[in-house]
Amino acid sequence: MSNQQQPRRVRDLGIVVGARPPGVLNAITDVPGVRVGHTTIVDAPRLHTGVTAIVPDALGATRRSLPCGLFVGNGFGKLIGATQVVELGAIETPILLTATLSAFRAADALVTHVLATPGHEETRTLNPVVGETNDGRLSDIRARPVTEAHVLAALGGATSGLPGEGCVGAGTGTMAPGFKGGIGTSSRRVGDWTVGALVQSNFSGTLTVRGVPIMPDDGAVPVAATSSASAAAGRGATGDAPADPRQPEGNSCMIVVATDAPLDARQLGRVARRAVFAMARVGSDFAGGSGDYALAFSTADTPSSDREAPGRVDDGDLDPVFVATTEAVEEALLNSLFMATTTVGHRGTATAVPHDLVLDRLRAAGVLPQPWAAGPAS
Amino acid sequence: MSNQQQPRRVRDLGIVVGARPPGVLNAITDVPGVRVGHTTIVDAPRLHTGVTAIVPDALGATRRSLPCGLFVGNGFGKLIGATQVVELGAIETPILLTATLSAFRAADALVTHVLATPGHEETRTLNPVVGETNDGRLSDIRARPVTEAHVLAALGGATSGLPGEGCVGAGTGTMAPGFKGGIGTSSRRVGDWTVGALVQSNFSGTLTVRGVPIMPDDGAVPVAATSSASAAAGRGATGDAPADPRQPEGNSCMIVVATDAPLDARQLGRVARRAVFAMARVGSDFAGGSGDYALAFSTADTPSSDREAPGRVDDGDLDPVFVATTEAVEEALLNSLFMATTTVGHRGTATAVPHDLVLDRLRAAGVLPQPWAAGPAS
Amino acid sequence: MSNQQQPRRVRDLGIVVGARPPGVLNAITDVPGVRVGHTTIVDAPRLHTGVTAIVPDALGATRRSLPCGLFVGNGFGKLIGATQVVELGAIETPILLTATLSAFRAADALVTHVLATPGHEETRTLNPVVGETNDGRLSDIRARPVTEAHVLAALGGATSGLPGEGCVGAGTGTMAPGFKGGIGTSSRRVGDWTVGALVQSNFSGTLTVRGVPIMPDDGAVPVAATSSASAAAGRGATGDAPADPRQPEGNSCMIVVATDAPLDARQLGRVARRAVFAMARVGSDFAGGSGDYALAFSTADTPSSDREAPGRVDDGDLDPVFVATTEAVEEALLNSLFMATTTVGHRGTATAVPHDLVLDRLRAAGVLPQPWAAGPAS
Amino acid sequence: MSNQQQPRRVRDLGIVVGARPPGVLNAITDVPGVRVGHTTIVDAPRLHTGVTAIVPDALGATRRSLPCGLFVGNGFGKLIGATQVVELGAIETPILLTATLSAFRAADALVTHVLATPGHEETRTLNPVVGETNDGRLSDIRARPVTEAHVLAALGGATSGLPGEGCVGAGTGTMAPGFKGGIGTSSRRVGDWTVGALVQSNFSGTLTVRGVPIMPDDGAVPVAATSSASAAAGRGATGDAPADPRQPEGNSCMIVVATDAPLDARQLGRVARRAVFAMARVGSDFAGGSGDYALAFSTADTPSSDREAPGRVDDGDLDPVFVATTEAVEEALLNSLFMATTTVGHRGTATAVPHDLVLDRLRAAGVLPQPWAAGPAS
Repeated sequence: MSNQQQPRRVRDLGIVVGARPPGVLNAITDVPGVRVGHTTIVDAPRLHTGVTAIVPDALGATRRSLPCGLFVGNGFGKLIGATQVVELGAIETPILLTATLSAFRAADALVTHVLATPGHEETRTLNPVVGETNDGRLSDIRARPVTEAHVLAALGGATSGLPGEGCVGAGTGTMAPGFKGGIGTSSRRVGDWTVGALVQSNFSGTLTVRGVPIMPDDGAVPVAATSSASAAAGRGATGDAPADPRQPEGNSCMIVVATDAPLDARQLGRVARRAVFAMARVGSDFAGGSGDYALAFSTADTPSSDREAPGRVDDGDLDPVFVATTEAVEEALLNSLFMATTTVGHRGTATAVPHDLVLDRLRAAGVLPQPWAAGPAS
Repeated sequence: MSNQQQPRRVRDLGIVVGARPPGVLNAITDVPGVRVGHTTIVDAPRLHTGVTAIVPDALGATRRSLPCGLFVGNGFGKLIGATQVVELGAIETPILLTATLSAFRAADALVTHVLATPGHEETRTLNPVVGETNDGRLSDIRARPVTEAHVLAALGGATSGLPGEGCVGAGTGTMAPGFKGGIGTSSRRVGDWTVGALVQSNFSGTLTVRGVPIMPDDGAVPVAATSSASAAAGRGATGDAPADPRQPEGNSCMIVVATDAPLDARQLGRVARRAVFAMARVGSDFAGGSGDYALAFSTADTPSSDREAPGRVDDGDLDPVFVATTEAVEEALLNSLFMATTTVGHRGTATAVPHDLVLDRLRAAGVLPQPWAAGPAS
Repeated sequence: MSNQQQPRRVRDLGIVVGARPPGVLNAITDVPGVRVGHTTIVDAPRLHTGVTAIVPDALGATRRSLPCGLFVGNGFGKLIGATQVVELGAIETPILLTATLSAFRAADALVTHVLATPGHEETRTLNPVVGETNDGRLSDIRARPVTEAHVLAALGGATSGLPGEGCVGAGTGTMAPGFKGGIGTSSRRVGDWTVGALVQSNFSGTLTVRGVPIMPDDGAVPVAATSSASAAAGRGATGDAPADPRQPEGNSCMIVVATDAPLDARQLGRVARRAVFAMARVGSDFAGGSGDYALAFSTADTPSSDREAPGRVDDGDLDPVFVATTEAVEEALLNSLFMATTTVGHRGTATAVPHDLVLDRLRAAGVLPQPWAAGPAS
Repeated sequence: MSNQQQPRRVRDLGIVVGARPPGVLNAITDVPGVRVGHTTIVDAPRLHTGVTAIVPDALGATRRSLPCGLFVGNGFGKLIGATQVVELGAIETPILLTATLSAFRAADALVTHVLATPGHEETRTLNPVVGETNDGRLSDIRARPVTEAHVLAALGGATSGLPGEGCVGAGTGTMAPGFKGGIGTSSRRVGDWTVGALVQSNFSGTLTVRGVPIMPDDGAVPVAATSSASAAAGRGATGDAPADPRQPEGNSCMIVVATDAPLDARQLGRVARRAVFAMARVGSDFAGGSGDYALAFSTADTPSSDREAPGRVDDGDLDPVFVATTEAVEEALLNSLFMATTTVGHRGTATAVPHDLVLDRLRAAGVLPQPWAAGPAS
């Protein structure tokens, strides 16, 4: 049964996205100095939510900001900090991801965290950056269960190892098209640089794995709403029609790209655009109620001043970075699904994508070799 | 002494901005169905802050959004809700103004308020809109004293009368160039329509009243910082140099424009742009550390659907609306200063603009008639 | 040989994109009142270029503009008219497509055309809208061969029938990833509305047909540059490295979407965004040197005034329009390739995509049924 | 009579804007390597138009682009090249200014010019940047009299001296509020850097000189339309009401800011915003039919690559650059009027601003000292 299967990263299943080599961990934490922490909040079946923190070590006492670009693919979302990121081309804080209605408490907690950091004793303005998607099908989002302690734990527990994926942190209660979504990550090498992506997947559409659409069928139990009444209320505040029970509410995607390539904010904005475009490669339908955002920041060292845009890369040389971004985001999105597990939630159930079914489909489509092609005895 | 003077609206002092007639109250509340509420938080000298709520009655159980445009003149600010306002061209909630570091708690409280509104029992996504400026010179901004109760009180107490101006609500601790700033409001009639503005003034530059620059001199005691050490820390988080003690920290301006003209979101964005441009008329220097934003929304009735952009006005007919906006914002900015009172705060003192001095200067410049010109006995 | 094959639209080959029904012609001209005209300029092998005009009949003596939205996916392009389209949310002229360096002469000719239209005797300002992609591999783009007569012929010859596709008009000399590109069109029905797309395809990446990547191999002769010297000069002005000879120069895509759905400019901007996102579905790599733009306009009748944004559609109801847009653009992009023919040009040759090879691949991938599955006698 | 007066720069009249020192010439050409050329086209009374070229020497065989930012204050204009300037944050060509309907021919001629430059033998893509305002009141704009030869002459004749101001080049036929406008320039020093501005003024509103409004009266003959019929046709294409005969048609403003400060494109965009804001200081009403744009570019040397964004300036240090920009633009706008001469044109007459009247008004307002205050015998 699909809900018994072992979570696996797609590359471990033989599914390889693109030709560029990943970093050692195949994760955003391959970018030196980037750490990730999760706080997972589960009180089944009512609560499936949490917080994910992306922490660049370069933001410290001596460096107050990092170059950052933003692209809003579809602004049906509540990203906190957007206008200052665009104006100054920089982030001043770690980036948090959480559930929609908890974003404001998370931002407040992020302020608490930074104000308590040595060197910030006199800080009186700060631009916390918090992204969110809506986990209101699987979790009681109106309860806003995320507390300051949860946020501080995610920030404090951030490590440079392979981040948890699937049903962890801000991905605990999210859904991808037809299946359970969550957190995913991946990375690519571009010469001496690394491009890493981390996603909080929650989008609608038709899951597509390396070009092959994966429709729920008898092998892929669709997400079932607990009741039609609750489904009908899915996007109540926006007056939309009852949502497809297999589709996430607030079908969104938050994407964070990190790199040590010395890009300036404008160039990072171009990177962010490709990150959102990459959603098309896994079958997002870019629905109108989706909050599809990408933030891309650079940790590259700059000699003298934290607001310096190093800009040492010519725009004409960006294509490999763009391709790396596209590949990393696509694989991170797939990892977010393949690492997730079936979740019985507040107002419905989301089923993990069945690995065997996908592998069968990919073999049938010629994307993966037939199993008997691998060994002599076949 | 200037701190003894009676707060007066500029029009009551004979200072008239522009030729268009104001509404009955000369306030944003002249727009039918727009209410304003303040919660003022003072614990002198440490706390001078608060919350201001602009509440459009049209947002209720049957109507979930109003057309709205946004212009970011300088995005060094934390406006919450920006990207969704732009994407959908609409607000879904009242608009709150508060202090920078309290914005996130205010947004969370606004969510509490709306979720508790009848008709929102099943709402699971919401885009609270909260603007802010930095009152960190006069108030202990790091304390984040704004609570949910303060926000609910501002929302609950909103009335359709003449709003409080000067040192009230979100303007309690703000400063304008050289003087004490605050909340101000004004309105203009355009045929059957009304355009109203409400501002939270906190900008730097050289105060200019109807073209006449008002520099603090012996008659206009400059704002004094408590100590050079605290002044130096003024914009600590952004690495800026020590600020001018007469200039506000996070020298910003939040402007809200309301109208019952049936404009769509794009047109309201054009209105919002003029609102920010109008800051130049009172001497803003549009400093790089300023969060200068304008939101413009329409309450115009639309027959069938809340997301409908009525758009019944031709762009070629917008100029009177633009002029009305410019005039109302200029007068609202002046009111925010002339209605403010000298405030001894956390890290400095802000002096009220001395009315007599300004009137003398305006008379000397020929902007106002000489007093003896008015009567025979002079 | 591939250069002998009959141009075929993909649907006629059994390749169906999406589930929504196309209009009668499966073309942008299914939108009532939208006409298309081409002027094709060929002087082989040196010149392969032209002009394509999309002409909305609604723009006439009584109506001076139509609501229009724009999305710039990657702004490495010279789209003329962009800022006014965004400001006013409207087009005032037909839309022209042509070659990069000819865009300015085309815009001037479009001014000539409109000034000569009855009702424009006193017109002294006009915003011609001209898009372009770079056909400099197959055509001597520096010669700027497009004349006013060519433009007037395209405008004058515009008809409401099925537009020419492939190597016609502005698509005469363009290239798509690995193959010859050109003009393509398609449409979808959404209730009583029609959404139509017309594209000028010139992008790089890996051609992908319904998820199946089509790499040139022995059955798909790659595009060959005439000489490495000329290839190296491909993107000379931007200092880029020598381009892949199988990739177009100025690897771009201009997309025009027309609809009779009564959308306002902001909503049409949302439509335009999906049009660019759809490029990912046929394998665009969104290269940094690509000018990827979409314009979306509405012909919907508005009762009183040409600048009125009708806005009679709720944003919550736009998803079917978004899906229709995505499908129509994807199919139009495929048609632009499948209708093109192998072209020996100025500095290289572009080979038509080999239909048989693609069909074989799609059958192998299970996207199309095996031929023997269709009939008993197989 | 005002049309007999000697054109004078405002500083030569004793009118000083701001406190910062200008460069040696008080012109955009104070920025090292920036040249300006004009072609003036006059065939009175029918034609009063021309071309102005701003030529940065840094754009040459070894350097293909310069960092550039753009702000669109009101996009009712036809600025050519906008989207690529934003995407790449750079200009690739000199900047031209001309009349609205001639912009396209000018752009084509600019392509001719650059393609003929040594090093551009293989250039096949190019983004010409051409701004415009509407001189259709004083010149027969529909005639599009600007030829390639005119453009090449402006480019070829560009010099590093003090540029012509007033009724020259692209300012030959433009109008400012109530008076004749034209070309103006000014500069400011910021430490070792220079900020220079050049404007093509054509805006509506109320001329304001250092805060003092200058309304045409018996001493300031208003601009008179030749006939009400022609005035009524002023903005025919946009359906606007008959224009004020004293207001320019297409009441617009093109502003070009140059600096040798090593700013990146994002920062230059912030500079460009202040340039448009500065229009408020001379009384622009930011009318809806105005094309108000600012381009800001940097000539700063960058060590290795032309697309490098040097970004060696911290955003926190930009305020002096912003102030310098505001001052230079304000003074350039005033120079454009005070250097202009009364012009009898195609469909009306524009009167030069009467210097004596303005000086009297400034003295009366106390902005300038009374004349007798200057000498001992008073």
